[in-house]
Amino acid sequence: MRKPRVLVTSGDPGGVGPELVLRALADPEVGGLADFTVVGSPASFRRDAEALGLPMPSILPADDSPGVPAGRPPGVPARDRPGVPASDPSGVPASGPPGVAAGGPSRVPVSGPARAPADRPPVPVGRPSAEGARAAVKALAAAVALMAWGEAGALVTAPVSKEALRLGGYPWPGQTEMLADLCATGDLRVLLMAGPLRVVHVTAHRSLREAIDGVTSASVLRTIGLADDIGRRLLGRSPRVAVAGLNPHAGEHGILGDEDEEAIRPAVAEARSLGIDASGPLSADTLFPRAAAGETDLVVAMYHDQGHIPVKLLGPDEGVAVTLGLPFLRMSPDHGAAFDIAGKGAARAGSMKAAMRAAAEAAGRDIADTRGTP
Amino acid sequence: MRKPRVLVTSGDPGGVGPELVLRALADPEVGGLADFTVVGSPASFRRDAEALGLPMPSILPADDSPGVPAGRPPGVPARDRPGVPASDPSGVPASGPPGVAAGGPSRVPVSGPARAPADRPPVPVGRPSAEGARAAVKALAAAVALMAWGEAGALVTAPVSKEALRLGGYPWPGQTEMLADLCATGDLRVLLMAGPLRVVHVTAHRSLREAIDGVTSASVLRTIGLADDIGRRLLGRSPRVAVAGLNPHAGEHGILGDEDEEAIRPAVAEARSLGIDASGPLSADTLFPRAAAGETDLVVAMYHDQGHIPVKLLGPDEGVAVTLGLPFLRMSPDHGAAFDIAGKGAARAGSMKAAMRAAAEAAGRDIADTRGTP
Repeated sequence: MRKPRVLVTSGDPGGVGPELVLRALADPEVGGLADFTVVGSPASFRRDAEALGLPMPSILPADDSPGVPAGRPPGVPARDRPGVPASDPSGVPASGPPGVAAGGPSRVPVSGPARAPADRPPVPVGRPSAEGARAAVKALAAAVALMAWGEAGALVTAPVSKEALRLGGYPWPGQTEMLADLCATGDLRVLLMAGPLRVVHVTAHRSLREAIDGVTSASVLRTIGLADDIGRRLLGRSPRVAVAGLNPHAGEHGILGDEDEEAIRPAVAEARSLGIDASGPLSADTLFPRAAAGETDLVVAMYHDQGHIPVKLLGPDEGVAVTLGLPFLRMSPDHGAAFDIAGKGAARAGSMKAAMRAAAEAAGRDIADTRGTP
Repeated sequence: MRKPRVLVTSGDPGGVGPELVLRALADPEVGGLADFTVVGSPASFRRDAEALGLPMPSILPADDSPGVPAGRPPGVPARDRPGVPASDPSGVPASGPPGVAAGGPSRVPVSGPARAPADRPPVPVGRPSAEGARAAVKALAAAVALMAWGEAGALVTAPVSKEALRLGGYPWPGQTEMLADLCATGDLRVLLMAGPLRVVHVTAHRSLREAIDGVTSASVLRTIGLADDIGRRLLGRSPRVAVAGLNPHAGEHGILGDEDEEAIRPAVAEARSLGIDASGPLSADTLFPRAAAGETDLVVAMYHDQGHIPVKLLGPDEGVAVTLGLPFLRMSPDHGAAFDIAGKGAARAGSMKAAMRAAAEAAGRDIADTRGTP
């Protein structure tokens, strides 16, 4: 069976990104799940591979990728495709663990030169820097272009840093905002998965007052729809979606706040009329133990802490974030660039491994789905 | 060593209250921890004791207790004390498990007649009723009078029902509100304990919008002070109190909402200046895993779900609520009257046992503290 293709960006190479990617790829339970191709600076990966005694992966040097020209609509093929035989199964070597090159620095032929320009300063390790941000942005832009061209079934992004992006003069606080810009979509959602829980958030990084304002029927309905969609891709069937209430005890029929009755309940009813197996609003404190026990497939949480508290409590080192609303699947580990331990060989790759595993499974299911359609 | 005295009310005898109390007292790991005296309707306990084959406990019949006359200031001794030799160690039988009577219906001499008036209808089992609410209210009022007179070191209350209280024409939605009235205090807090977590809430049963409005420096400071006080009584030392932020990532220095910097941080600073080992505001999603790992003794949560979600996730069947701000210690199990399983012998007493254990330990520590003072 053909393996799904998954792209993995370096993130900020001054942080733990390259180390996490190398560690995850070297795990035979992860590296063999897909045809993984790394997008980033080869020098950064070579440095960490030598320090850790791990093989070099297949790398697409991002500094020489064309990036995404501003203003180009998402999904429109560019005139020039980079020389990546992504959908050609013959590109996978017959021997050696898939996704990990047997010996050389890169098994993927690249049309352009694979070296960083000589006049570019190296990325300092262990602190946020404009150079680190630049490398991360170039890698993500290159990966987005490849995803838009259908070169892979899923994208995994290693972490960047808000501080480095600021130092680099970029307008985005994080990669999700950059992805929203590049894909010309502003209405994304975050699914957080860890342990037994999968939680999609109506709002995430907004003040709690603004988060309450964001609980509208339209916003909740869109979130339920995105939850249903990703549930189908992750599980291969119609998922059970449980929608948390906003107020204590889901408002107790309007006694404790109006939003549960006026915004959430109508959205759930509308979702059910669309054929989605949705229920709610449900008291959040009793819902999560039931979700953890497997009584539902996905939870829709109304705001950041309502979803993040249970996820981080039950899966502290294996959290995966999935960005919903993009034209492609994007997964990322649920932690930052961790400059304090970068270059020390001490990074734990549990969350990155979980992200790559989830990406491989979801991308593989899409292949299977496509083959099943006449 | 003298055992601490703990009162336990029946709650609504149409619910699982009497069964929970009997099961907990029959557990030698609970019943032996204190000199437990039950306050409630003997008929209800006799019914369940016979059905379950459990011994009858020491009972103070609540229907004949004087109750608390409206308008009497809290803590003022009444003219007539009921005939309860509460602080007399000789009242404990030499044989048999303490707190559980060896044979007779009651080992505590009671001054008045121990029967319900003949013209009062019995409490129906398995549904909310005015009769059930009346029995619960009488039991709680009698217990409060005894607590005000210093007859016991802690009070444990079995559950009542909001619906039954409404049917009975009472103005309180729950026992906590009734306690606030009887003790003339309106500024209570709830500590929820389960598994490794102890969480005190700045607000509880209010809409999320109102809960945000309730996050003021004064309210947070009072909560930290009450957390410190109960921590000393539970642990016997100055506790570490970690204060959660209100907004995602505790507001990220004011980027995501003002409350963390303007209300919570000043309250923590003020608490520290008073000698309390407080820290915060801390991002709630990363705080709870650390609290669960024992890195802090108590967490101050800003609103209901922020504290209830982690507690119910980590200790689903052993939650204990402690009411803070009363002139005495009051514990209760973290669940309702469960009319659907009342009288069926199917109630699980884990939460009630945990409440009685915590009450015995805290009351015992107070005795030890008093003895240690010259």
